[in-house]
Amino acid sequence: MRLTRAFLPTLKETPAEAQIVSHRLMLRAGLIRQTSAGIYAWLPAGWRVLQRVTQIVREEQDRAGAQEVLMPTIQSAELWQRSGRYEDYGKEMLRLKDRHDRDMLFGPTNEEMITDIFRGYATSYRDLPRNLYHIQWKFRDEVRPRFGVMRGREFLMKDAYSFDMTMEGAQHSYRQMMLAYLRTFQRMGLKAVPMRADTGPIGGNLSHEFIILAETGESTVFYDSEFESRDWADTSLGYDDVPALQGFFDQVTSMYAATEEMHDATAWQSVPEARRREGKGIEVGHIFYFGQKYSATMGLSVAGPDGTTVVPEMGSYGIGVSRLVAALIEANHDEAGIKWPDAVAPWKLAILNLKPGDAGCDALCEKLYAAFPDQAVYDDRAERAGVKFNDADLMGFPWQAIIGPRGAANGRVELKRRMTGEREELSFEDALARLSA
Amino acid sequence: MRLTRAFLPTLKETPAEAQIVSHRLMLRAGLIRQTSAGIYAWLPAGWRVLQRVTQIVREEQDRAGAQEVLMPTIQSAELWQRSGRYEDYGKEMLRLKDRHDRDMLFGPTNEEMITDIFRGYATSYRDLPRNLYHIQWKFRDEVRPRFGVMRGREFLMKDAYSFDMTMEGAQHSYRQMMLAYLRTFQRMGLKAVPMRADTGPIGGNLSHEFIILAETGESTVFYDSEFESRDWADTSLGYDDVPALQGFFDQVTSMYAATEEMHDATAWQSVPEARRREGKGIEVGHIFYFGQKYSATMGLSVAGPDGTTVVPEMGSYGIGVSRLVAALIEANHDEAGIKWPDAVAPWKLAILNLKPGDAGCDALCEKLYAAFPDQAVYDDRAERAGVKFNDADLMGFPWQAIIGPRGAANGRVELKRRMTGEREELSFEDALARLSA
Repeated sequence: MRLTRAFLPTLKETPAEAQIVSHRLMLRAGLIRQTSAGIYAWLPAGWRVLQRVTQIVREEQDRAGAQEVLMPTIQSAELWQRSGRYEDYGKEMLRLKDRHDRDMLFGPTNEEMITDIFRGYATSYRDLPRNLYHIQWKFRDEVRPRFGVMRGREFLMKDAYSFDMTMEGAQHSYRQMMLAYLRTFQRMGLKAVPMRADTGPIGGNLSHEFIILAETGESTVFYDSEFESRDWADTSLGYDDVPALQGFFDQVTSMYAATEEMHDATAWQSVPEARRREGKGIEVGHIFYFGQKYSATMGLSVAGPDGTTVVPEMGSYGIGVSRLVAALIEANHDEAGIKWPDAVAPWKLAILNLKPGDAGCDALCEKLYAAFPDQAVYDDRAERAGVKFNDADLMGFPWQAIIGPRGAANGRVELKRRMTGEREELSFEDALARLSA
Repeated sequence: MRLTRAFLPTLKETPAEAQIVSHRLMLRAGLIRQTSAGIYAWLPAGWRVLQRVTQIVREEQDRAGAQEVLMPTIQSAELWQRSGRYEDYGKEMLRLKDRHDRDMLFGPTNEEMITDIFRGYATSYRDLPRNLYHIQWKFRDEVRPRFGVMRGREFLMKDAYSFDMTMEGAQHSYRQMMLAYLRTFQRMGLKAVPMRADTGPIGGNLSHEFIILAETGESTVFYDSEFESRDWADTSLGYDDVPALQGFFDQVTSMYAATEEMHDATAWQSVPEARRREGKGIEVGHIFYFGQKYSATMGLSVAGPDGTTVVPEMGSYGIGVSRLVAALIEANHDEAGIKWPDAVAPWKLAILNLKPGDAGCDALCEKLYAAFPDQAVYDDRAERAGVKFNDADLMGFPWQAIIGPRGAANGRVELKRRMTGEREELSFEDALARLSA
């Protein structure tokens, strides 16, 4: 993408309305633009990050055996009247009427709808277990939307729903999602800690929130520092190995971690003092086991192996996908701007031409750009070097290739690694090799 | 995907409510499920097709130089009051109020919003031309939704918006999109004919619809058969070559093609009789040039090279992405079911194990499945061969690999090509080579 042709606007001024750093940087770096209170358009750079985050979430759901569907945003009120949540949900539910005066709503979550869909096809134990997920825009009409996409009204959520014949099966599904979540966040370079949590309006008796530590978090959390050293990526732990997954779950849940609401001062004392961590956290995921709550109310039942009727056991599993983009910035930034981890960066590389019009600079920049047509932003604007440095730092590309007349004359490129600030002058070939590694 | 673990339900009965073949087959093959009148959930097979169609649309927009964003579904009524379309739009617009009693709506299209966003950043001629697109769910509250996703209420649309400094520039943008559209549809194996059309509520004075010929089409169309032999894929025609693109446009528009509303009987007579084609068509795309209609009403202006204020010239360009899935089926099916073109098939291959439990069948099927982990559906169900043949034909996988005990004993696989019905018995290695080609 050449900046002279791109729609990658940056703002010099810090927008007054933005109270937290991710919101400020998302506006300044041109990732999002507010179109109504708590509702945002994603501009090209932001949209690319959101797509990369979405794709990681998708791949890890698929690996765990969940299958992707897409449910619509608009639901009929009747579904929610059946579960009894239509009245419960309160003013956060965006209610509306269609032209025939039917009560509809913009879905804030999909337990009712997925149960109703699954009911339309599942007849026997052979149709279970299944885990279905979708990645769709939701709407929650927050009374005071704030913090940008961290607490917006229209937001992108991945929500998965598991159907099992037994409680043991449902617990296995729950453990699969716990592992998938830890792997998902780790791939993005985030340390997320699962914490026992209240089940709230979803219901049920087993629930974990996944919390990213950040100063701007809304909730206070307590956890054992052992979490910080864990690596969940080891794929020798397979999703179909029931005892191994139980072992994993027992190990995770044996380490202390709790939100303020669930905090147990006595249990906390048994964590060695040096390992006690207390801080602010951002919730990026939440998993629930709620048994037959929705299958029973929505009339889902199947024939068991012995012919008796069984009401399936369910769970639901959410990740706040658009919120994750903000959480990633909260965890990766400095005074100058965003520092995107490689896994989610909108473009891997910014090529800064310090003197457009200089034949040597232009030629070397074009040569480098040709090597990364889809992964590089080429700053070919007639702007001062300082403007280019600032914009590249602000937008947070993992690599900057800085090419000025002196270097170009000698065929040399300066590479800057945004995450660490390291700089190195290299021959063109070595720079290419470094960037391709 | 193993069918014993998949959520790929098929229906034996033809649903009574479905009047056209694509709607019937989408329900029977388990691609979609209606959740409210004119509102559908996409089940795994349908969702995969929709993603593949979306990706082709995206790639061709990117190649043409358009840049992807994502605008929200919920818009403020105030935007539409400014353009004057809030009242004009009538009952097809889904209107609603949020908890603070503000008038909002579910976007049916985005001319107002994109102009307002662009206005927030563009200040000078250097910021133009730009073409911004998004692929987002829209809502049009049809009084009588029907024909499945062909005329649903919540539907997926790609809409692009171009901003140019001059009318000539805007016409070039228009031609870029015309070429991109012809290439997009051709990649899906569809012959789409651009036809002069009425501009309708979008406004403006230049507009083309892209029509796929199909018996179930709603509109009568007239066109020169020369269109059928054209190949638009030749990439030597570049998007930045203004005279070449004008030549392409002049050539396309010199051939007769018109919808019933725009049909000109006199001009029709000048088409050689043998080349006159008349039929029913399905609209899958629509492009508009409307000049300053929205830039003027929404207050978008920039400084020209000489410092004077310029109100940009605009166009908008839509593709009905979810409708395309139905149109693809209308164009590719037989009595037994869907015949997916390779470019959009949900999975490339179905592996039919005719005798699960037979060691030879199981081993050969597993070996083949291991070669295509993400591209094959493995029918490992304990079902009769006839059920498997019917389901594979219905779901329309481009290839079927049929493995029975006799073949397996000799290491042989029968391959069936769904599009042509051709069958061939091959050694495992040859089958693998054929499928990998």
